Amino acid sequence: MKQNRQDTGLSPLWIETSPQKNSFRSILKWGDKDAFKNPSKGFLQVIKQTLNLTDADFQTMEKDGNQIVEAAMPVHLSGTDLASMEKIVGKENISVATYDRLKYTKGKAMEDIMNLRQGLVKDICDIVVHPRHKQDVRKIVSLCHHQKIPVHVYGGGSSVTFGLDCPKGGVTLVLSTHMNRLVSFNETNQTITVEPGMMGPFYEDLLNHAPQKLSAKKAYTGGHFPQSFEFSSVGGWVVTLGSGQASSLYGDAADLVISQEYVTPRGEFKTLEYPATATGPKLNDIMKGSEGCFGVLVSVTMRVFEYLPENNRQFAFMFPSFESAVAAGRQISQGRFGMPAILRISDGEETDVALQMYGLEGGMLDRFLVFKGMKKGKRCLVMGQSEGEKGFAANVLRQVKKICKKNKGFFLTGYPMQKWYKGRFSDPYMRDALNDYGILIDTLESSVTWENLHHLHTAVRKVVKANPRTICMTHASHFYALGTNLYFIFITKMPELEAFKAYQQSIIDSIESAGGSLSHHHGVGRMMAPWMERHLGQEQMEVLRAIKAHLDPNKIMNPGGLGL
Amino acid sequence: MKQNRQDTGLSPLWIETSPQKNSFRSILKWGDKDAFKNPSKGFLQVIKQTLNLTDADFQTMEKDGNQIVEAAMPVHLSGTDLASMEKIVGKENISVATYDRLKYTKGKAMEDIMNLRQGLVKDICDIVVHPRHKQDVRKIVSLCHHQKIPVHVYGGGSSVTFGLDCPKGGVTLVLSTHMNRLVSFNETNQTITVEPGMMGPFYEDLLNHAPQKLSAKKAYTGGHFPQSFEFSSVGGWVVTLGSGQASSLYGDAADLVISQEYVTPRGEFKTLEYPATATGPKLNDIMKGSEGCFGVLVSVTMRVFEYLPENNRQFAFMFPSFESAVAAGRQISQGRFGMPAILRISDGEETDVALQMYGLEGGMLDRFLVFKGMKKGKRCLVMGQSEGEKGFAANVLRQVKKICKKNKGFFLTGYPMQKWYKGRFSDPYMRDALNDYGILIDTLESSVTWENLHHLHTAVRKVVKANPRTICMTHASHFYALGTNLYFIFITKMPELEAFKAYQQSIIDSIESAGGSLSHHHGVGRMMAPWMERHLGQEQMEVLRAIKAHLDPNKIMNPGGLGL
Repeated sequence: MKQNRQDTGLSPLWIETSPQKNSFRSILKWGDKDAFKNPSKGFLQVIKQTLNLTDADFQTMEKDGNQIVEAAMPVHLSGTDLASMEKIVGKENISVATYDRLKYTKGKAMEDIMNLRQGLVKDICDIVVHPRHKQDVRKIVSLCHHQKIPVHVYGGGSSVTFGLDCPKGGVTLVLSTHMNRLVSFNETNQTITVEPGMMGPFYEDLLNHAPQKLSAKKAYTGGHFPQSFEFSSVGGWVVTLGSGQASSLYGDAADLVISQEYVTPRGEFKTLEYPATATGPKLNDIMKGSEGCFGVLVSVTMRVFEYLPENNRQFAFMFPSFESAVAAGRQISQGRFGMPAILRISDGEETDVALQMYGLEGGMLDRFLVFKGMKKGKRCLVMGQSEGEKGFAANVLRQVKKICKKNKGFFLTGYPMQKWYKGRFSDPYMRDALNDYGILIDTLESSVTWENLHHLHTAVRKVVKANPRTICMTHASHFYALGTNLYFIFITKMPELEAFKAYQQSIIDSIESAGGSLSHHHGVGRMMAPWMERHLGQEQMEVLRAIKAHLDPNKIMNPGGLGL
Repeated sequence: MKQNRQDTGLSPLWIETSPQKNSFRSILKWGDKDAFKNPSKGFLQVIKQTLNLTDADFQTMEKDGNQIVEAAMPVHLSGTDLASMEKIVGKENISVATYDRLKYTKGKAMEDIMNLRQGLVKDICDIVVHPRHKQDVRKIVSLCHHQKIPVHVYGGGSSVTFGLDCPKGGVTLVLSTHMNRLVSFNETNQTITVEPGMMGPFYEDLLNHAPQKLSAKKAYTGGHFPQSFEFSSVGGWVVTLGSGQASSLYGDAADLVISQEYVTPRGEFKTLEYPATATGPKLNDIMKGSEGCFGVLVSVTMRVFEYLPENNRQFAFMFPSFESAVAAGRQISQGRFGMPAILRISDGEETDVALQMYGLEGGMLDRFLVFKGMKKGKRCLVMGQSEGEKGFAANVLRQVKKICKKNKGFFLTGYPMQKWYKGRFSDPYMRDALNDYGILIDTLESSVTWENLHHLHTAVRKVVKANPRTICMTHASHFYALGTNLYFIFITKMPELEAFKAYQQSIIDSIESAGGSLSHHHGVGRMMAPWMERHLGQEQMEVLRAIKAHLDPNKIMNPGGLGL
């Protein structure tokens, strides 16, 4: 393979044409079919160095999955059931074509992508249904309940935990086709009610332009910006307990939910719209994160915030060590002055990669940082943005600066943050480019208390690095008084699916064993399901099973999801 | 009765001696047996005016309940069961004396007090048990599960919703006797773990003196100050979803809970300590507010905050109307600059009473306010306190002032707030004094969206005022972006218990019908139970029943509580 150990520094040939229609690639490719983002020269350089690759490794491409999905897969549903479904939603809103059934049951996990590149058709639904409204959902769920047909829900399709797989076949309800409408907007209460299939950009655009589009007095923001923002749905955020890049101020998706309406096999489940209640265990919380296992979310009321982008203040610091950076992060999170909306701490390896990506390593800044005692491999980048009312945002910035200085952070202006901010939704495109040359990028994440953070970081890195020639970048990006999350990105070459699966499982296992949460915001799906009982404990898992048994006695709702 | 319609202005003879030992009065009396607070001259004047009373009404005292609890009530438990319990906790930790059984099954609802004054012994437990630790609880719950004996829990005894009643007899576990200890303190995570029976003042004192008492670097606060603070337990706050006077900044009790451990008939239920998780519906939330119906809380980990009282800033304003005051409250709550810890809006009637209480009506200030267009019956007092990091607290005060000014609020300095702050835990003592002369004070409360606030306020006042000669004071004191709470205080003469019950029920009914939450922070107990299904909806109530059926299949845990 590696005849030529020399590196010309030339850029490989990246694919920059949109995938063939109805191809596997059109399913696996991230985001917009006509959008591409290739690794920068600096980033490629790091990858080549660490993975020990040369130009030769970028001469032969892996299977690109650009062939058409042709196999006609059998439909395991009776003609009567199919006819009933067609009658409910209309012929134009059902499909049994293999391409559609594959498209709406695959997410964006590395394994999904590897399988699609191989042309594998596995664990798909029998029929794709595009319900037009709540009444359609009600009728389909009722039919499936009586006929014991599994029901799955597709929102934006960005699951990285096999949340959309249909190992038992059945129906997939696509909510983003029709059920993506505004239900109501209440400026007095600062809430918006939408159907779950509304996509992130549409939602945010409505709110940002509330005076024009919602006849509001002011403009608003939803405050929720996961990396998948452009290709995820409001309903998906809620049922998988997502978290956005600005969660430290605005809260996680769960914190933004005011009330919800579900269709369950048992009937309709609706929660009330109150600022707070003491009427027993909060039913609203019981449904958040249910990942389609209890019922189908058909309407959700979310909190919104006055949109004040003119007050945003960006900042970045370099710290001599991960320990000092984390100490600053903790002091900020416990500082009693409110939170910056965005805060990110990169560990030593991620910081090195970032500096190389931006071509800063070895330059003036690098030499200056070394002079200040900030050594390669140790130094850590911290950056973020304060938002809100002007005085509040300014005070947060002031306090952040004070705390960072106290912990030996060196102020780098807001430049690195602006750089990151620009590309914050487009990085996933790079994965496709690297995958084309057999380089895997995958991520796993956890939440952890301050007390246990360094232990978790060390333990997980050790397992990731047990595979030679692997980049392991880690950052913390969601902050709470109690702790933060750790987001592990690993990049390596590992062509065999089985080897990759074993590797991935060993990392998940190390996260759980080292006392991290099994998931901070990726959800459970089927990927984390095998660890759920060990993680939560048997008595705890039994309670989830009891709720499931009550709402879905025939076990038709997303069977196997959440480990239920 | 009212021979003398003249009012001398003399103060009535208030009882200022501690109740007789083992008397009904010793159970019904609020708080410290040697502490008393009588209505001020101004307050008494308002009461006399509105209720149309004279000196004559304060010459004959009602039944004061100061007789000893003598009746020997039968114990409906087998000798074997009693012996088993004695064996578990030791002889010194059980009691079948009627006085004890009455004491630990009565809360502080107006009806409880009326019954105790009459010497009524009703709905008491068969045996009082003081478990020493978790292991005792485990054994008692296991025994009761197998023998189908009801189990109830007593913390501080401040329930105003019949949360402690034992209509089916059985055991009452008193957690404040022994299970009131510190389990651990974690300064890095800013959390404290305590047994549920720890009382408010002990808890806050530990935290305020953390350097001395917990070997901490800094001092902390729990941030939770319900009016019952001095006589309520940490566990009680959690299982009834309490809310403190500073909740607008610190959050309600539910927001402060990091993790919990319960003993249930099904086994032990423990939640994990993570800042955030996406591992399915949050089990921690399912147990909060369970009011002893799912199991016994045996340990709870709470969030704490750096204690910075030196930064507190107090403020008060007078507004021309309830509408303008509420508009300011809403704008503050949605202002994106953080929240004041304390914020209180009194409606017109409460404001009038407050001014009369403090002897300010008719004086200079009054005349000035009238000159400023702030008329009696319309004008509304708004007051509060900002807390936190110095710059944060100062900015909150600045923004509050700006918003109040914009809404025609007139700054009154921090004086009224200081006045309120001093007496904020002692007002319940006044109830006993007024009750001695047959004057009832009771409260009901709700939470409501901004949109629906005025409708609820008007609708409930109408029902309260349908009873002639009744004071109805209302305030909002817990603020959220979505809305606030309304706290209704009504004062009247109504000697007949049945008439009072019908009256109270008509008010609860009006709250629910007018779209208020059935409870904001008083909890459900048995008082709100009859409305639960109508309020939450049948499907929603069924989910609570399903969880109950799973964790407590023999229905022994606080039967009838929460309407389960």
